Amino acid sequence: MSVFTTVTPEQMAAWLANYSIGTLVRLEGIAAGIENTNYFVTTSHTRYVLTLFEKLTARELPFYLNLMAHLSRHGVPCPQPIANLDNEYLGELNGRPASIATCVPGRDVEQVAPAHCAAVGALLAEMHLAGRSYREVMANPRGPKWWTAAMPEVIPFLDAGAVSLLQEEVRFQARYRFEDLPRGVIHADLFRDNVLWDGERLGGVIDFYFACTDVLLFDVAVAINDWGTTADAELDPVRAAALLDAYKRTRPFTPVERGALAAMLRAGALRFWMSRLYDLHIPRPGALTHAKDPRHFQRLLERHITREGDLRQLFD
Amino acid sequence: MSVFTTVTPEQMAAWLANYSIGTLVRLEGIAAGIENTNYFVTTSHTRYVLTLFEKLTARELPFYLNLMAHLSRHGVPCPQPIANLDNEYLGELNGRPASIATCVPGRDVEQVAPAHCAAVGALLAEMHLAGRSYREVMANPRGPKWWTAAMPEVIPFLDAGAVSLLQEEVRFQARYRFEDLPRGVIHADLFRDNVLWDGERLGGVIDFYFACTDVLLFDVAVAINDWGTTADAELDPVRAAALLDAYKRTRPFTPVERGALAAMLRAGALRFWMSRLYDLHIPRPGALTHAKDPRHFQRLLERHITREGDLRQLFD
Repeated sequence: MSVFTTVTPEQMAAWLANYSIGTLVRLEGIAAGIENTNYFVTTSHTRYVLTLFEKLTARELPFYLNLMAHLSRHGVPCPQPIANLDNEYLGELNGRPASIATCVPGRDVEQVAPAHCAAVGALLAEMHLAGRSYREVMANPRGPKWWTAAMPEVIPFLDAGAVSLLQEEVRFQARYRFEDLPRGVIHADLFRDNVLWDGERLGGVIDFYFACTDVLLFDVAVAINDWGTTADAELDPVRAAALLDAYKRTRPFTPVERGALAAMLRAGALRFWMSRLYDLHIPRPGALTHAKDPRHFQRLLERHITREGDLRQLFD
Repeated sequence: MSVFTTVTPEQMAAWLANYSIGTLVRLEGIAAGIENTNYFVTTSHTRYVLTLFEKLTARELPFYLNLMAHLSRHGVPCPQPIANLDNEYLGELNGRPASIATCVPGRDVEQVAPAHCAAVGALLAEMHLAGRSYREVMANPRGPKWWTAAMPEVIPFLDAGAVSLLQEEVRFQARYRFEDLPRGVIHADLFRDNVLWDGERLGGVIDFYFACTDVLLFDVAVAINDWGTTADAELDPVRAAALLDAYKRTRPFTPVERGALAAMLRAGALRFWMSRLYDLHIPRPGALTHAKDPRHFQRLLERHITREGDLRQLFD
C-alpha cells in the first residue's frame, strides 16, 4: 500500500485552490509504488495523480519534475507536472514535497509481444533525442561507483560461485570504457511496470525517479533485459530484436555503441542483481517493499556472459 | 477552405524527423479557419494539428505559442505546442512559420445550455489566474486605439443612426477608465466556435491568435456577448448568470469590476461590431472569409445601452 501520508478531501480541495485544474470531484489512494504516496485526483477537468514524496527532497525533485515537463513539451507521453499559481511544479502538502501531474492512461501489459517491444524501443529512442536539449544533470545513483561500493556489503550473503561472478563482473565493467559511449538523460528503469498501455497503444512511461545522466545504451540494455527476456531469464531474440530495430530506426547506433551492447546488457543485469541483493539482505529500516528475487538477474548475467556471440548477432 | 499552403506527406514525414512524436500515419487538411493553413497530423503516437502561419510572423508568434505552452503547463485544456529537437516550438515548412500542437478533442456545441456557460466561465477564470505568471506582453490589436482609428473608415458605409451610435459609443468608451480594472493575458475571442466539447465535457479552448494583454473583464464580456445571448441579440439572463457565477467562484470580481461589467459588455459589442463592419466594407485583398453580419453586434450594443439596469442585476 502506497499511502504513507494521508490526505483528506478537505486538504486536497484547499490545495487545488492554488491550481488552474478545476475543483475536487474524487480522491482515491493508489495501492502501488513503494517510495511515494500517490492519489488519483479527479477534478472537474479530468483525472490527475498527486504524489507526496516520502524520501526525495525539494532540492532533488526539480531534476525529475523538470525532466517530465521537458519530455511532455516534446510530445513524449509521460506524466506532465502541472504548475501552480506560483508557476511552480513543486508544492508542499502535509509536510511533504508534493506535485500533481496528468494521469497517463492505461495499464501495464500482461503478455509482451514483439509489437510492444517495438513501441517501447521507438519511444526510448525518442526520449533520448528529446532529452538532448535537457540541460540539468544528475549522476546515476545506481552506476559503477555505487555497485563497486555496495559489493562488499552483499558478499557475506552469497555462495562462492556468486561471489566470484559478482567480483569478476564488477572488475570487467570497471575496465570497460564507458566514456566512449553517447550519454544523455536516461530513464534507467524502463521495466514493464513502468509503461502503461491504452489497449494496444502505448499510453505513456511513468516513474522517472531513477532517471539520470548516463550512457544511452545502458538505458536500451535495461529495457532489453526486461522486455526482451523470458521469466526464466532467457533472452527472447525476437522481442529483443524488435526493441532494438525500432530504437535504431529513430536513433541509429554509433559504431562504438554497436560494439558495446553485450557489455551494456551485462551492466544492466549487474545493476539490478546488485540492487535486489541489497534490498533482500540489507533492507532499509521500515521498508515496506517485498524484495524481489535477485537470482533472476544473476542467471541473466551468467547467460549474457556465456552467450556473448548471440548478443552480438542482435546488432547484425 | 483553410489549406492555403499545401504540404505533401513526404514533406510532413521529413519535417517530423525533427520531433519526438513518432512517424507519419495520416495527413489531412482541415477545412476551417480563415487565417492559417491547418492539417490533422496522425503519427504513430497520436493526432496533432499542424499550423502554417499565413500572416503572423516568426517575430510575433512566440507570444501565442509560449502562451499556449504556459497554459498547458498549468493544466488549462488548450493546444499544447510540441518542441522540436532544437527545443523550439516554431519551425518553418514550405516557407511558412509552422508549429505542431496537440489536438484538442471534441467539437463545438450546437445548443448552448447553462451548464456549458458555467464550464466556460470557470475555465476563463482559471485561464486568467494561470496567466498571471505569464510574463510576455502583447497590446490588444483590437482595443480602443484600433476602434478609434477604424471608425472614420467605416462611417461612410453606415446610415445616420448607426453613425451616431458608433460615435457616441467610441466617445463613451474613451471616457471609461480602463486603467482601474485588473489586467492580464486574455483570450479576447472566446466565442462558441473556439471551445470544443468532448461529449458534455469541455475538451479545450482553441485559437489564441487574438490573445493579448488587456482588461480581464473585457474577456468575460466578450464571452457573455456570445455564450449568454440569443441569435437575435437578446441577452439570456440564465446563461449569462451561469457564466458569471462560475467565473467568480474561481476568481471573485473586485468592486471596481462589479461596477464595470455593463460598460465592458458594451466594449465587447463595439469591438466585434467594428471588426465585422471593417471586414464587410473594407475587405483585405484576397480575403477568403465570408464576412459576418455586423448588425448582430450593433443590436447587442443598442440593447446593452438601453438595458443597463438589467446588466447590473447580473452581478447581484
